[in-house]
Amino acid sequence: MYKLYSMQRSGNSYKVRLALSLLNMPYHAIEIDILRGESRTPEFLAKNPSGQVPLLEVAEGRYLAESNAILWFVANGTALSPESHIERAEALQWMFFEQHALEPNIGAAYFWVALVKGGRDLQTHALEDWMERGYAALQVMENHLKGHDYFAASRLTLADIALYGYTHVANHCDYDLSTFPAIRTWLRRVEQAPGFVSMDWRPAEVDDGASIAASV
Amino acid sequence: MYKLYSMQRSGNSYKVRLALSLLNMPYHAIEIDILRGESRTPEFLAKNPSGQVPLLEVAEGRYLAESNAILWFVANGTALSPESHIERAEALQWMFFEQHALEPNIGAAYFWVALVKGGRDLQTHALEDWMERGYAALQVMENHLKGHDYFAASRLTLADIALYGYTHVANHCDYDLSTFPAIRTWLRRVEQAPGFVSMDWRPAEVDDGASIAASV
Repeated sequence: MYKLYSMQRSGNSYKVRLALSLLNMPYHAIEIDILRGESRTPEFLAKNPSGQVPLLEVAEGRYLAESNAILWFVANGTALSPESHIERAEALQWMFFEQHALEPNIGAAYFWVALVKGGRDLQTHALEDWMERGYAALQVMENHLKGHDYFAASRLTLADIALYGYTHVANHCDYDLSTFPAIRTWLRRVEQAPGFVSMDWRPAEVDDGASIAASV
Repeated sequence: MYKLYSMQRSGNSYKVRLALSLLNMPYHAIEIDILRGESRTPEFLAKNPSGQVPLLEVAEGRYLAESNAILWFVANGTALSPESHIERAEALQWMFFEQHALEPNIGAAYFWVALVKGGRDLQTHALEDWMERGYAALQVMENHLKGHDYFAASRLTLADIALYGYTHVANHCDYDLSTFPAIRTWLRRVEQAPGFVSMDWRPAEVDDGASIAASV
């Protein structure tokens, strides 16, 4: 059984939990609250020098980091992974897009606006950039979804799971999805998949996030 | 033969050219100068709605975007792609790390400092963040390379090519690599690979980059 180091409120961690749930794969979850410094302990840094969750123990003492690499690893050979070489590459295309265009913007806004009490005031200037670039990423997604039900292989794949992670909390950190009808329909489509599990996060309850890295 | 839409001075484009050269794969390169708006024409946007290079035509009228997805696609089944499932996942781990920790920081600094004339003054505030986060990414790489010659599978793979793209120009955009001896040794190691080709870029020659997206 996989051992997953994860934070409940982290979108990147949630992606992996969602995939494992959709795949009906049992796993042992260990909660690492990065807002309380638990990813910066010597013990955790020995497992992942980047100090980030999620982290999957793939063999005794061997750890895999990066949410999308973990998704790719656990879904290999399953219905969530496209079969053809070109469709797998297209799924990866959207997963890389997610990590440089969506996660650094909506993920950062989610962290500071939704999770850190008072975080909005700490990040006023950065928030403007995150909103602008996050909306640009959402527009790229909307344009694709106007003509497709899913992001790759004409069915639910890893690419959808990767993109769902932060898109589905965008409305909790100031993004207005009313002008993105295809995205809203796609969100509901993902949520209807057998085995779907929600993120179950709670809003701002940490007093001071100023010293915490923005990447969750 | 592959048709590659690429910009000579783009680190993301260079990664693909480097991989194709190492693999001794012929390709037809079409120069798209994003600094002159060539990635924003209706013709190019029809191929890639994100308006980014590199872009690979993988079949008649079918295009693959995202440098690292393209790397993964062209290197499949070659010596640059690890054989085992876990080693492929570890290569992907570093490629996702590259796209959210290295490229948005060193890539952005390279663009504005090295390519755009006067860009440094336009981005004074952002540059501070890019330097801090870029150094943090370099430290993660340095720590890994202290105990490994390469990033995955104990040999030159896609992961090294992805990370080489912007790391090798870091010294051209204010990063000081003198305290990263393992990175400097690894850069030389990559450059000794048979088929290695240099990026062949030219510094700041564009007068106004203020309206150009930072992602190159």
